[in-house]
Amino acid sequence: MEYITGVKKKQLQTIREILQGNFAEKEVRMEGTVHTVRDMGEVAFVIIRRAEGLFQCVYESGKMNVPLAEIREECSVRVRGTVHPEERAPHGFEIRLSEIKIISSPAEPLPIPIGKQKMTASLETRLSLRPISLRNLRERARFKIQEGLVRGFREYLTSQGFTEIHTPKIVSRGAEGGANVFRLEYFGKHAELAQSPQFYKQMMVGVFDRVFETGPVFRAEKHNTTRHLNEYTGLDFEMGFIDSFEEIMEMETGFLQYAMELLKKNYAAELSMLDVTVPDVTKIPRVRFDDAKVMVSEKYNRRIRNPYDLEPEEEVLIGRYFKEECGSDFVFVTHYPSKKRPVYAMDDPSDEKFTLSFDLLFKGVEITTGGQRIHDYHMFLEKMKKRGMSPEGMDDYLSIFKYGMPPHGGLGIGLERLTMKLLDEQNVRETALFPRDVTRLEP
Amino acid sequence: MEYITGVKKKQLQTIREILQGNFAEKEVRMEGTVHTVRDMGEVAFVIIRRAEGLFQCVYESGKMNVPLAEIREECSVRVRGTVHPEERAPHGFEIRLSEIKIISSPAEPLPIPIGKQKMTASLETRLSLRPISLRNLRERARFKIQEGLVRGFREYLTSQGFTEIHTPKIVSRGAEGGANVFRLEYFGKHAELAQSPQFYKQMMVGVFDRVFETGPVFRAEKHNTTRHLNEYTGLDFEMGFIDSFEEIMEMETGFLQYAMELLKKNYAAELSMLDVTVPDVTKIPRVRFDDAKVMVSEKYNRRIRNPYDLEPEEEVLIGRYFKEECGSDFVFVTHYPSKKRPVYAMDDPSDEKFTLSFDLLFKGVEITTGGQRIHDYHMFLEKMKKRGMSPEGMDDYLSIFKYGMPPHGGLGIGLERLTMKLLDEQNVRETALFPRDVTRLEP
Repeated sequence: MEYITGVKKKQLQTIREILQGNFAEKEVRMEGTVHTVRDMGEVAFVIIRRAEGLFQCVYESGKMNVPLAEIREECSVRVRGTVHPEERAPHGFEIRLSEIKIISSPAEPLPIPIGKQKMTASLETRLSLRPISLRNLRERARFKIQEGLVRGFREYLTSQGFTEIHTPKIVSRGAEGGANVFRLEYFGKHAELAQSPQFYKQMMVGVFDRVFETGPVFRAEKHNTTRHLNEYTGLDFEMGFIDSFEEIMEMETGFLQYAMELLKKNYAAELSMLDVTVPDVTKIPRVRFDDAKVMVSEKYNRRIRNPYDLEPEEEVLIGRYFKEECGSDFVFVTHYPSKKRPVYAMDDPSDEKFTLSFDLLFKGVEITTGGQRIHDYHMFLEKMKKRGMSPEGMDDYLSIFKYGMPPHGGLGIGLERLTMKLLDEQNVRETALFPRDVTRLEP
Repeated sequence: MEYITGVKKKQLQTIREILQGNFAEKEVRMEGTVHTVRDMGEVAFVIIRRAEGLFQCVYESGKMNVPLAEIREECSVRVRGTVHPEERAPHGFEIRLSEIKIISSPAEPLPIPIGKQKMTASLETRLSLRPISLRNLRERARFKIQEGLVRGFREYLTSQGFTEIHTPKIVSRGAEGGANVFRLEYFGKHAELAQSPQFYKQMMVGVFDRVFETGPVFRAEKHNTTRHLNEYTGLDFEMGFIDSFEEIMEMETGFLQYAMELLKKNYAAELSMLDVTVPDVTKIPRVRFDDAKVMVSEKYNRRIRNPYDLEPEEEVLIGRYFKEECGSDFVFVTHYPSKKRPVYAMDDPSDEKFTLSFDLLFKGVEITTGGQRIHDYHMFLEKMKKRGMSPEGMDDYLSIFKYGMPPHGGLGIGLERLTMKLLDEQNVRETALFPRDVTRLEP
């Protein structure tokens, strides 16, 4: 009988091991992709790309088993050589090669250069060649940082007693309603793609008190902007037994504090490569929606056109205001008008025109929508009635209120937007691995 | 200016704090849901349900601020009282109440009893009332264990140098092909729901060497079995620079070893509640597909009908064989016939009728499909040609081979099936939070 017993350590070194251990003048083996080759005549620099970064190898002509011409960019190789201190090498060390084994070769040269620090190709070109352009170090670094944000979200919420859930994306009825749903046929029935896990995460508050989910969210919005995607990754949580909707903002602030520290600790190389300064999230200012409108209208001399909604330009100005007035990149805007929030939003008992809800703006762009939800069955039915809505098809959702729910609330964060603003990118497509927009369904 | 500064500790105790700290004879406050009320006359037991478990509170008639009749099941409450050692209480402690505050009440009594240890209602009934039936402790415990499996997957792979990715679920062309795709219209274009992240995770191997994703997977399979769901959670990984396809099985074994230890450490209460014995995964036997067929045919006296496929009954027998012969709940079945595997599977160079691929069976059910993939561009084109396939519409995917890919492979694990077999459930719907099957689109 043969058995598999787990991962065996290979006789190969990682960049981290070489830099941490005492490998100077010792023989090492490393595998990776040939990122660039610079032929200097006597020697050539063969730069190896690995997930952890680049490493410089030196190829000395006439001493090697493989002619330099065969060592092409994007070859997969396994090399053997001796580690030498070399202050001009990026890490202070290089490998002087004694052997190189080509384990895979490309069929054609790259259609676009990826070896330079920064790619100069247009966003359009980079997106169309995404599987290749992501091999550029700066392009891929964004997604390493994005990984850190998701990890921070999960780790922080787990430490706060949340349970992770997986809710269905094919649903009979979207949570937000309206026109922006993708429809599909599901074995002869009408179905939709989930616009958010809203109903399901509320259901699960009755089960686990506090829950979170990280997963895809689908919006069939027809506008093509720099801030919208038709499929994005939602970081959602929902928490029960809240005394006020402030607790939701406190939890989000806690997450941001945790995530920023995690990035500084574990993603320093990527932050530095992208010149990102992690924002201070020690404290985040909060302001009422109506006050915010007046404040920016007065300070920036701008007429309020619609008292019930924030225009994108107003969001930018609110962001600017709080940056100027208290140095914060973030601001919670609270008490959105009831008529602009979904039916499940809890109205402010002191003024029912407004809700116990908020958006979080990051450098002038909304990255989160959240708030307290109605938890009382009769209050829910009444609000639906006032809005002329029918409870038809919502039995499962309404049943949780009928049979008892704690006061609760939650939020949804758009991962790609959060990443975009953190990295000071101008287009959310830069921070979506394979973005979906009105015209883009590939790659 | 007002600020949000993070999570504030509330003056409330958790069950864990009470059991860990020295709270005997001290006053505590706790919040939770009224799980059950047992009126004994002089006193009543009010059992509080929290995400962490149940806690017994004692209500003494005549001493309390709220009449017992108002304390109904599924009320959300905040209680104050004194901790007393009580050996008949589940944790060895109970809270003798001095105050109870009802913060939310149900509109109607529960439609189904959830307070008993085990629910006796049929699967059909429990699924239809899922938002409520999950409030039963055993029902929900399955999903806590499921959380542990996902956590184990991510934590282990992260420790092995993998990067987490998020790939699109709306795609122009499914990875597996065939008839079992959900179709939708995407702004006037034909689109599909991703049957797996296969193409995208391979693309990302060229970027980050090793990647994983945990996300929804959609299969429009029309058969209604106890093992199939139309939407499930895929645990996918893909790794580059492999020397053999055994490394993929080694990585999966490593994951299982890590996850089982994590469960024993952090999910002991749920395992015990469900009477689950965590399987031994120190070593997992492996057997060739063709050998396995012969072995079970001989031992169990069963005729081989189709030499190219495993029937479910054969999988069960292979599971039984390796349980009997070497005490293992798991077995890797390797070298599936090429004609039964997708075009991207790497054929065995020593016999091209078979592939360098495997399934992992757990107690006789396939929970993983994996293997090595073709990484050479010309080999890929040739295999497509042999199968009469057109490369049309696959340019993005094929480009990664054209421009260079390391030898690589990976796998996909069905999370709900893994959970089902771990918990010895008979139906995969038991371990899907809100299952989707041919007839079930709600809740």
